Amino acid sequence: MPESLDVVNFATKFALIDKHWSPGIVAEANDWQFKLVRVLGEFVWHDHEVDEVFVVMKGELTIELDGRADVRLRAGELFVVPRKVMHRPVADVGECELMLIEPRGVVNTGDAGGSLTAPEQWL
Amino acid sequence: MPESLDVVNFATKFALIDKHWSPGIVAEANDWQFKLVRVLGEFVWHDHEVDEVFVVMKGELTIELDGRADVRLRAGELFVVPRKVMHRPVADVGECELMLIEPRGVVNTGDAGGSLTAPEQWL
Repeated sequence: MPESLDVVNFATKFALIDKHWSPGIVAEANDWQFKLVRVLGEFVWHDHEVDEVFVVMKGELTIELDGRADVRLRAGELFVVPRKVMHRPVADVGECELMLIEPRGVVNTGDAGGSLTAPEQWL
Repeated sequence: MPESLDVVNFATKFALIDKHWSPGIVAEANDWQFKLVRVLGEFVWHDHEVDEVFVVMKGELTIELDGRADVRLRAGELFVVPRKVMHRPVADVGECELMLIEPRGVVNTGDAGGSLTAPEQWL
């Protein structure tokens, strides 16, 4: 785990990521974790017991939401997926770089499991 | 307060800000607030009972820290000011655009008070 007084440079951290859908923690504060992830294609439908914040840093992302209209996010946009709402992120126009902000310990696939479930890891 | 399912576009929100050191809330999740602020010059020394996350969106910022080396942040960088650490943000090379992420209800000047203390407000 980095020293808490380190500056996190997003570009430097993204350059360390070589796998899609595998978030890496870059900072913690007040039991929240800040994670960077590179995504491409379709993820799995899942939900969480907590709100999950998406910030698109590069590229575009669609978030499909159960019973609601899809949300389209571009670089420089933030979206809160409310707790217990089933959702599926899809990067359908090329790779997308995201920051996720959520409480410590959230699993990327929720209870859905599957091959895209990622371990908790620091970048 | 905007609908929770709104997409937040940072550029659109920053364009609404006409005053320095006056954060505007753009989203809430899990009792955390996401605030945008435009800063220029020196703020006041203060601290908080909680960790405070700074993300520089545009420009540069120095964060002076009590008893530690200054931290220099550029666009695309994140820094966590630990709880109870006295600090003073300074934008000394022109205006800087920031996102602050902190628990609901944090006052920008902590207990220091003064003319730069801002009310809780949504953008």
